[in-house]
Amino acid sequence: MEYLDKIGRLAKEAERELRTLSGGRKNEILERAAVELMAAEEAILAANAKDMEAARARGMSPGLLDRLALNPARIRSMADGLRQVAALEDPVGEVLWMKKRPNGLLIGQKRVPLGVVGIIYEARPNVTADAFGLCFKSGNVAVLKGGSDAIHSNRAIVEALRRALAESNLSEGALQLVDSTDRQVTTEFMKMDAYLDVLIPRGGAGLIRTVVRESTVPVIETGTGNCHVYVDASADLTMALNIIDNAKTQRVGVCNACESVVIHEAVAREFLPQLCDRLASHHVEIRGDEMACRVDGRILPAAEEDWGMEYLDYILSVKTVKSLEEAVSHINRYNTGHSEAIVTRDYENAQRFLDEIDAAAVYVNASTRFTDGGEFGFGAEIGISTQKLHARGPMGLRELTTTKYVIYGNGQVRP
Amino acid sequence: MEYLDKIGRLAKEAERELRTLSGGRKNEILERAAVELMAAEEAILAANAKDMEAARARGMSPGLLDRLALNPARIRSMADGLRQVAALEDPVGEVLWMKKRPNGLLIGQKRVPLGVVGIIYEARPNVTADAFGLCFKSGNVAVLKGGSDAIHSNRAIVEALRRALAESNLSEGALQLVDSTDRQVTTEFMKMDAYLDVLIPRGGAGLIRTVVRESTVPVIETGTGNCHVYVDASADLTMALNIIDNAKTQRVGVCNACESVVIHEAVAREFLPQLCDRLASHHVEIRGDEMACRVDGRILPAAEEDWGMEYLDYILSVKTVKSLEEAVSHINRYNTGHSEAIVTRDYENAQRFLDEIDAAAVYVNASTRFTDGGEFGFGAEIGISTQKLHARGPMGLRELTTTKYVIYGNGQVRP
Repeated sequence: MEYLDKIGRLAKEAERELRTLSGGRKNEILERAAVELMAAEEAILAANAKDMEAARARGMSPGLLDRLALNPARIRSMADGLRQVAALEDPVGEVLWMKKRPNGLLIGQKRVPLGVVGIIYEARPNVTADAFGLCFKSGNVAVLKGGSDAIHSNRAIVEALRRALAESNLSEGALQLVDSTDRQVTTEFMKMDAYLDVLIPRGGAGLIRTVVRESTVPVIETGTGNCHVYVDASADLTMALNIIDNAKTQRVGVCNACESVVIHEAVAREFLPQLCDRLASHHVEIRGDEMACRVDGRILPAAEEDWGMEYLDYILSVKTVKSLEEAVSHINRYNTGHSEAIVTRDYENAQRFLDEIDAAAVYVNASTRFTDGGEFGFGAEIGISTQKLHARGPMGLRELTTTKYVIYGNGQVRP
Repeated sequence: MEYLDKIGRLAKEAERELRTLSGGRKNEILERAAVELMAAEEAILAANAKDMEAARARGMSPGLLDRLALNPARIRSMADGLRQVAALEDPVGEVLWMKKRPNGLLIGQKRVPLGVVGIIYEARPNVTADAFGLCFKSGNVAVLKGGSDAIHSNRAIVEALRRALAESNLSEGALQLVDSTDRQVTTEFMKMDAYLDVLIPRGGAGLIRTVVRESTVPVIETGTGNCHVYVDASADLTMALNIIDNAKTQRVGVCNACESVVIHEAVAREFLPQLCDRLASHHVEIRGDEMACRVDGRILPAAEEDWGMEYLDYILSVKTVKSLEEAVSHINRYNTGHSEAIVTRDYENAQRFLDEIDAAAVYVNASTRFTDGGEFGFGAEIGISTQKLHARGPMGLRELTTTKYVIYGNGQVRP
């Protein structure tokens, strides 16, 4: 496809400029981009109004409409986001280690940009500015493919951001929008391995599955979270109640929310009625195994499918187990490798849970809701990786880099 | 495919055992595996004789026959390899960083095994023992698919290694051979994303291309190297001669050998005749651009295809350039992201080359032949990655791991 090829060539040209751009220059340009974004408020809001009107006419749900909607406060928040990213430490150029080899070669491993990063996302125009900020700060060219429903908003945002690039005499290829609502173009975009170093999907499970299946570019899988809280026999039950309540109800639609409670039989009889009481106030539906249902009549019978569900809703499954061993097996079988927690007073069980659970983040006595770049202290995040290669868990600026070996010699040859 | 599903299930079972195996136990088992390998010498040599006979009957080339052949010294060398890996530091469990967050959560990033590693390779039975050693030491299950021509040898080696696992009461699923010469099985093996965390192809460019194209498992691309040495205007020409001679001729069939020399016009007239003299003794054919051909009649005209060639042979291309800028552009356009070197006395040019060249390893005043796990001090290597995600350059034990966030709380919930 000629259109995508052109995008790819411009990206490759810009890649070399960005590779050697100093941290100071990058920060200046990010500040300028924030200014341009604020200055373009009127144009962005007008473009967004078009998207909103078309979306309403198509009967988009209120939840999705809210994610699509922009207003002056949200534009300011995008601009603030760019300034926050500017204030973060530049990951590029950090030397992870350097050592002198016996032959006198000085070998170091240095952090460098990935190159060209593709991001594919849904109709959330704020992602356009966020993704640009993170990619640019880490020295990467960003090629963005946003949801078709946000096409006018994305165009206006990208136009403003590119003004900042042009004013700084930087190639505008450094930020590109795949400006099309044609599905065929999206499919071809996922096959741009000649130009893209990585493709990151941001959005729901459906989008992510499609990208993983279709892409020939290396993908970093993000997002889906079937997160468990295991209540051990020795748990402080009040702490367990607080943690489950928080992990389930503080925000239900997010990937680090708790979807399932696993509970040791020894405390099920005491704990489950308290849990039903506590979650009743949030109208959480609880679906449990046979034993859970016997303990409290408010618990409905769970089906086999429930164990693997990411509800993203006011629903919780409950599984009773006879041992830590059984809890770990159950969780490792049904989880999505996102975030898992144990509530326990037992030292040995805490350590075993940390060691044996296979997930990006494993907690002792804390809510799974903390799995987040901001909460982990990374300052910003491009997504939460649930895969094992390259990046696992919240991805900050570092995860948008690779490394390069730099070797200083004085004539060494291999004997 | 039922057969591969069974392999996958056994691998997943063994994965949990290996995840928590202590470094001491892993080393004991590696030592035991070395002993079993030596004890099985007779059986392995008999199996290898079958493979050799069949390969000769099929008219396999002497070079490939040599790679297939085993003898007592080579079996000892495989056993020694396992002992050397045992002696390396265990990468698993290392905490990369740990910090207390303002809310009291103690968050750490810890190195853990990848899980199940698939390796697909050609008819080199020594890879069977090497790959097992590296995977096992890093806590990973190894599922090996070796070349069909080595099937009897591989079977005998795996049998010996699995005896060591069984004696240690470890699940034999920890090491599995895809025991088939059916191409359809190989194709299905590359689609085992339900079980494999990563697939590493080891072998020639053809094998690697097939795996990258066919696999639905994340692949780490290894190997191809179109490596350049750039002779700057300020180069010490004797040093440049030594480095090019070494990088080209010390071993021609390897990925870190030099395939192309880029030379600044200012020194071409003086340097190229010396280079022709020096390489004549190794019968290296030199193919150059117009200017190079004009300077020395022994240089044959290069075609456009030459610039992208990984010859793996006594052939070298020569490109003249007017500036460092042009050298960097040429190299970044035609290289495979492996190893590139500059020979220079100029500080600024050395720094610019290190910064601007896009490759796994960039050298100043040294031979590209040093790109190797052993030479870099990693003790062992599973391959040399030419991709940017997860691992770049020589891959040692660390590159066979991922990380996990471990979080210690005392009841924290997200406000």
